[in-house]
Amino acid sequence: MHIAVIHGPNLNMLGIREPQTYGTMTIADINAMIATKASELGISTQCFQSNHEGELIDFIHRQHGTADAIIINPGGLTHTSVALRDALLSVSIPYVEVHLSNVYSREPFRHHSYLSDKAKAVISGAGHRGYLYALDALSATQSS
Amino acid sequence: MHIAVIHGPNLNMLGIREPQTYGTMTIADINAMIATKASELGISTQCFQSNHEGELIDFIHRQHGTADAIIINPGGLTHTSVALRDALLSVSIPYVEVHLSNVYSREPFRHHSYLSDKAKAVISGAGHRGYLYALDALSATQSS
Amino acid sequence: MHIAVIHGPNLNMLGIREPQTYGTMTIADINAMIATKASELGISTQCFQSNHEGELIDFIHRQHGTADAIIINPGGLTHTSVALRDALLSVSIPYVEVHLSNVYSREPFRHHSYLSDKAKAVISGAGHRGYLYALDALSATQSS
Amino acid sequence: MHIAVIHGPNLNMLGIREPQTYGTMTIADINAMIATKASELGISTQCFQSNHEGELIDFIHRQHGTADAIIINPGGLTHTSVALRDALLSVSIPYVEVHLSNVYSREPFRHHSYLSDKAKAVISGAGHRGYLYALDALSATQSS
Amino acid sequence: MHIAVIHGPNLNMLGIREPQTYGTMTIADINAMIATKASELGISTQCFQSNHEGELIDFIHRQHGTADAIIINPGGLTHTSVALRDALLSVSIPYVEVHLSNVYSREPFRHHSYLSDKAKAVISGAGHRGYLYALDALSATQSS
Amino acid sequence: MHIAVIHGPNLNMLGIREPQTYGTMTIADINAMIATKASELGISTQCFQSNHEGELIDFIHRQHGTADAIIINPGGLTHTSVALRDALLSVSIPYVEVHLSNVYSREPFRHHSYLSDKAKAVISGAGHRGYLYALDALSATQSS
Amino acid sequence: MHIAVIHGPNLNMLGIREPQTYGTMTIADINAMIATKASELGISTQCFQSNHEGELIDFIHRQHGTADAIIINPGGLTHTSVALRDALLSVSIPYVEVHLSNVYSREPFRHHSYLSDKAKAVISGAGHRGYLYALDALSATQSS
Amino acid sequence: MHIAVIHGPNLNMLGIREPQTYGTMTIADINAMIATKASELGISTQCFQSNHEGELIDFIHRQHGTADAIIINPGGLTHTSVALRDALLSVSIPYVEVHLSNVYSREPFRHHSYLSDKAKAVISGAGHRGYLYALDALSATQSS
Amino acid sequence: MHIAVIHGPNLNMLGIREPQTYGTMTIADINAMIATKASELGISTQCFQSNHEGELIDFIHRQHGTADAIIINPGGLTHTSVALRDALLSVSIPYVEVHLSNVYSREPFRHHSYLSDKAKAVISGAGHRGYLYALDALSATQSS
Amino acid sequence: MHIAVIHGPNLNMLGIREPQTYGTMTIADINAMIATKASELGISTQCFQSNHEGELIDFIHRQHGTADAIIINPGGLTHTSVALRDALLSVSIPYVEVHLSNVYSREPFRHHSYLSDKAKAVISGAGHRGYLYALDALSATQSS
Amino acid sequence: MHIAVIHGPNLNMLGIREPQTYGTMTIADINAMIATKASELGISTQCFQSNHEGELIDFIHRQHGTADAIIINPGGLTHTSVALRDALLSVSIPYVEVHLSNVYSREPFRHHSYLSDKAKAVISGAGHRGYLYALDALSATQSS
Amino acid sequence: MHIAVIHGPNLNMLGIREPQTYGTMTIADINAMIATKASELGISTQCFQSNHEGELIDFIHRQHGTADAIIINPGGLTHTSVALRDALLSVSIPYVEVHLSNVYSREPFRHHSYLSDKAKAVISGAGHRGYLYALDALSATQSS
Repeated sequence: MHIAVIHGPNLNMLGIREPQTYGTMTIADINAMIATKASELGISTQCFQSNHEGELIDFIHRQHGTADAIIINPGGLTHTSVALRDALLSVSIPYVEVHLSNVYSREPFRHHSYLSDKAKAVISGAGHRGYLYALDALSATQSS
Repeated sequence: MHIAVIHGPNLNMLGIREPQTYGTMTIADINAMIATKASELGISTQCFQSNHEGELIDFIHRQHGTADAIIINPGGLTHTSVALRDALLSVSIPYVEVHLSNVYSREPFRHHSYLSDKAKAVISGAGHRGYLYALDALSATQSS
Repeated sequence: MHIAVIHGPNLNMLGIREPQTYGTMTIADINAMIATKASELGISTQCFQSNHEGELIDFIHRQHGTADAIIINPGGLTHTSVALRDALLSVSIPYVEVHLSNVYSREPFRHHSYLSDKAKAVISGAGHRGYLYALDALSATQSS
Repeated sequence: MHIAVIHGPNLNMLGIREPQTYGTMTIADINAMIATKASELGISTQCFQSNHEGELIDFIHRQHGTADAIIINPGGLTHTSVALRDALLSVSIPYVEVHLSNVYSREPFRHHSYLSDKAKAVISGAGHRGYLYALDALSATQSS
Repeated sequence: MHIAVIHGPNLNMLGIREPQTYGTMTIADINAMIATKASELGISTQCFQSNHEGELIDFIHRQHGTADAIIINPGGLTHTSVALRDALLSVSIPYVEVHLSNVYSREPFRHHSYLSDKAKAVISGAGHRGYLYALDALSATQSS
Repeated sequence: MHIAVIHGPNLNMLGIREPQTYGTMTIADINAMIATKASELGISTQCFQSNHEGELIDFIHRQHGTADAIIINPGGLTHTSVALRDALLSVSIPYVEVHLSNVYSREPFRHHSYLSDKAKAVISGAGHRGYLYALDALSATQSS
Repeated sequence: MHIAVIHGPNLNMLGIREPQTYGTMTIADINAMIATKASELGISTQCFQSNHEGELIDFIHRQHGTADAIIINPGGLTHTSVALRDALLSVSIPYVEVHLSNVYSREPFRHHSYLSDKAKAVISGAGHRGYLYALDALSATQSS
Repeated sequence: MHIAVIHGPNLNMLGIREPQTYGTMTIADINAMIATKASELGISTQCFQSNHEGELIDFIHRQHGTADAIIINPGGLTHTSVALRDALLSVSIPYVEVHLSNVYSREPFRHHSYLSDKAKAVISGAGHRGYLYALDALSATQSS
Repeated sequence: MHIAVIHGPNLNMLGIREPQTYGTMTIADINAMIATKASELGISTQCFQSNHEGELIDFIHRQHGTADAIIINPGGLTHTSVALRDALLSVSIPYVEVHLSNVYSREPFRHHSYLSDKAKAVISGAGHRGYLYALDALSATQSS
Repeated sequence: MHIAVIHGPNLNMLGIREPQTYGTMTIADINAMIATKASELGISTQCFQSNHEGELIDFIHRQHGTADAIIINPGGLTHTSVALRDALLSVSIPYVEVHLSNVYSREPFRHHSYLSDKAKAVISGAGHRGYLYALDALSATQSS
Repeated sequence: MHIAVIHGPNLNMLGIREPQTYGTMTIADINAMIATKASELGISTQCFQSNHEGELIDFIHRQHGTADAIIINPGGLTHTSVALRDALLSVSIPYVEVHLSNVYSREPFRHHSYLSDKAKAVISGAGHRGYLYALDALSATQSS
Repeated sequence: MHIAVIHGPNLNMLGIREPQTYGTMTIADINAMIATKASELGISTQCFQSNHEGELIDFIHRQHGTADAIIINPGGLTHTSVALRDALLSVSIPYVEVHLSNVYSREPFRHHSYLSDKAKAVISGAGHRGYLYALDALSATQSS
């Protein structure tokens, strides 16, 4: 099994940006943890971060025929990007939506997602571990 | 670290109630999996299920000075109990809200929760693994 | 045939509470009449009253595999309890909803019921005899 | 005790009209059952069916000084006849409203009744037995 | 004169729960102050706290024939419990509704009470003294 | 073929009531013309007039197993009678709705009919001949 | 007596256009039937069809001093032509509006007619016989 | 200066159509008065009437390079013809819209005009003199 | 400590206006009781009544640097005066809102107050004693 | 393949009418280009223009059994003609709707079309070439 | 003449993404067809696809002084990008908006475009040929 | 003090794009004026422009630890980019939002900004001087 992990805009600033909300761990730390977890689960992963909507779409397209599942934290694009939704639907790969912070306790404009209704699951507020749980959940789906 | 795991009304009926929505696993099965996971994490847990709002509140109060964190699946009380919300706030213990099914794709009256905005995290649609992820997330918080 | 009869909050006060609305008969009187009627019909019954939502749910759960039908007067919980609704649905037992007084001539907040749309029948304002009629109606259904 | 039983428009067609909703029993069958039940209760009854609003009103007026109570299934007039309501109020005789089918689960224009808020009781969805229960309820009122 | 003082869900946590809102005084402290004040006024009191809606209803029922008045702080049930309202009405005892904090300056869902329209008076935001004022007001009513 | 012709309330006043609207022909005249026309068409008819909603319903019921079609001018009941609609549906006989005057040029409250959406055809404003046309149309349907 | 029969736009396509709605009879067939009927009635007729609003208006004007009555099926112009309405009013000739299908059971934009409120009669849903009935009705008016 | 005067549908019926609204003067009378007035003003005119939207459009097109101004009474097309509006705009000739009666005091559907917003002036309710005023106004424009 | 006591519009009519709602005690009686209570508490007070919004605002402004707290019964201005709210906020003096009757059981338009959310406390329905409780509450605050 | 090309009202004025919107090319020029293009595509065409709704309808009817497709620029009739819509549907021939100017940037009353929802494609603002593109698109459909 | 052809997000996935809506032709196929067509027209083109809003804007800016016209299929950005609209307006180059499918028959959120009101033309539902038509239309504009 | 000045999408086109709205000054001109002003204020600046949301986010991230304040004109992204908002919040640097034109008097879709509520100040419609005022305001903040 191969899973693509996608980090959206500003997630490269983890450890700097609003640490009281997102914690001090960097994205490199997160990716290392993902790699370790994936290894334990016997699956391969590829992590990707970009602040560019277009690069995220490009990456999603490249998963066609490659990834069995996608884990995506769309950052601020969650609430504004029809193109990102179209990209995920264009490749027909199941995905889990992850948010580091609990979006339900933040601004109202963060309460709508263009991705949630088509997501397999939504994990919100579990910090970087949200990715590991998504990895585990997708892995379990396959083996079941 | 000690974590209290709370199952709200009707969750004792898992495996009987609407299996097409909730699966065939029983609450005993889930508690066993929680125990195994907790043991791996080197933490202690206490699982508690009640169909009584008052017992759930009493149990939450007893966690004051005892539990470091709470995992709660409030069942139908999610949508109707201000007292349950107040109980969780009264003990100042961080909690994670878990739903077996993805509530974002169910009836409208299940889309509002009196607990989510004060929860540390919300995990929805990951089935029984949602509890394990909550356990892991809270465990990790302590060690960090 | 076995039928569970459930009295919700405040019904233990019958004979005391607002007699101009509910009459002077006590719940013990009602239960005795139910027992007599059931005996006539050749069916067994178990009556249960509680002011506790949780105990009502517990009792409903225990009917799984035991009761063929339920008669329930949910009292004030009629209008506020999603958990009670979930409990009745979780055991998949047909039920008749009974109200001692005519709820259609009382306050607007008593005009919505979380149970009516899933009930087999609704009997409102027939006093304690409403239970006997529900008993008879359910008995007749079986024999037909 | 004397009770007038009133069947409104089209109820004479029972067994012919929409049997999937109303059942195959005829009004004669129902009246026979009412007579038997009344005899058991030691009370006299008079059954009356009319498709005429005016005759129904006339009949209700004639109950003044004659009937101690009225049982009425107003049929389609339930939703349109203020005059029928006025007739019932003009004779100051307590009445029970009966519907064969559960009106709370049918077309919206059948959800409002001009009679319910002044009725002593409303029995909906108990089939022809609804009349017997109404008979019993009114009989009991007198003896109490 | 005998007055029952009822503390609803979570009030046993006073001094622990959100002290910036409710202060550091415990419920034992408050009950002691109530006893002293009652003694001054020459009246007897009984204080009761429970987190169970059902137990609160049970206690209210027991005041029938015992208490001349009730002082109640319903906690979170203020906003959700029709059953509690019914319990108070069932015993026909005048009551004063007390809230420690000013509920009108808190979350919108705390702005509606199922008890206020039937209360003799409402005292909100006067802290523990609210109980003493309620005691005084009820005492004065009797003597007037 | 047998066709029942039904005249609703006030049509017995034809020739007296608002002749500028309805003409001077009496209902006896109309019925005679209907009889002649039916004879020509080789079909039998029965004409019936009543000012009683109930008698109209009774008559409709009697057509069950007797009439192959119904021609009805419901008069003022067109706009108010759910019971008349129920009667026509209860016997499952096709019907044509006839109005002597053109209802589309009269008061707005005459623009809605409880019968039109279930009618085979609607003829409005052709005076008494509307009945003959309805007769012809129904006759033609049979022979086609 | 002379009657003008006017067929509006697209009626020349009868037998081709949407036969499931309008039937397979052609306009020539209809005109032949009209001629036969008129002959029987001892009156003359002139049938006219045009897809041109202007020609229809011209034709209507030419009826001034010629035709005693008009029968018109305005087709799609029913819903859009004020000029057609004005033409009919300008010649002060009584007219009957005919629709082959029952317009009361079709699309909402076909429920309003610019002609109906000034028509002598409206016949809807009687198929081609609607013209014959209109002929008869107008013929009868003269002789009466 | 040359002015085209256009009479729309049904205006050829002046003196016949609804004289209580439009008077008894014929269109020939009006055209004669226009000729006299034009002569006084030292301008030439051409009057044209048609009941065909298409012919009106054709005539308007022919004014291109011929007429300096247009006076138009569009009759019933005022309210329904975008094509007539487009015709007037296509030839870029200034026009005055004339209505014999005051359209603003007639049926609501006569209150909107597709021509008015592009007209140089609108004269409504001045009877046949409206044409003369339009003539005068256009003449004055030129000489100013 | 110095406390300003403000009576809003119409409170000068106490003992005259709607005595069934407000009692027979006059404002002079109330002010005398306030003086006595204040004396017991060792604090000074100034009572002020006006029917003029402007005078009330002026009075509030004059308390700046003078009063330590304000007790206000705003009368009908409670529900309409943003200016009064602004006046109280402009002087930054804590205030208690007092209503003689229980406003929550009166007309709906008395259920919203422009002052409550910024008040230290709200006492409603305790009659004139409400002022004494407010005095006590503010006095206690100072000494704590 | 044979394609009918229909130009609605005012399109004969092309080159004269509002050249800033529609350009200077005449309809003859356009038809010549259509003929050339059709010749290239190996298909036959017939062009038709009329300012008369009726002639347009006549022409459409004549395409029955003749044309394989229709290209139509309905001009101002786009927004007002139910009869034109009916004509197109009556012959069951696929059609493309063409507008010379971009209707999406013009007056609001040009934003609704009675034809678009049934059209195969809509080309707006491409000038006279819109016809050629429609020709090409329909031609391609056939050959594919 | 030089024309820039811009394909927005996800159009590189043509042939993969939702083929039932967009067809199986790839973007390379389309670009080849565009090149061939441009060659025939004697004009140069540059095709550009990007999933990046910024690259699309940069590319549009680079057309200033280079491209004589732009053809753009904005994909999902059609509905969300004000910056793309601003870019097109900033270079004052005429553009044609192309959609492969007929957007007027798809989801409501695809019915609004930030580009259409400023576009020279909109071609919707002509498949890949829409680009060729846009090319031709723009080419023709220049030569005219 | 060091201030980063950010120009969003399309601002590189200043002097070209819609000069009636934005003036003829180029971005180089503006940057020169900013440099002069900064020199006067004794502070350093770095100007940056990009049409890529992603690059703007990247640049903002690089200011972390470098810039003391940010001046940003977000162009069209003002109204659509949550990601840009997040970028500014992630580096915790105070920013002033500048718009050359008065966005409050332009199209409705330009009236909402995702940045304004977190901005230190918003200057709209002061043309290029807006940047200088922002510079001055931020400089003044530091020295105060």
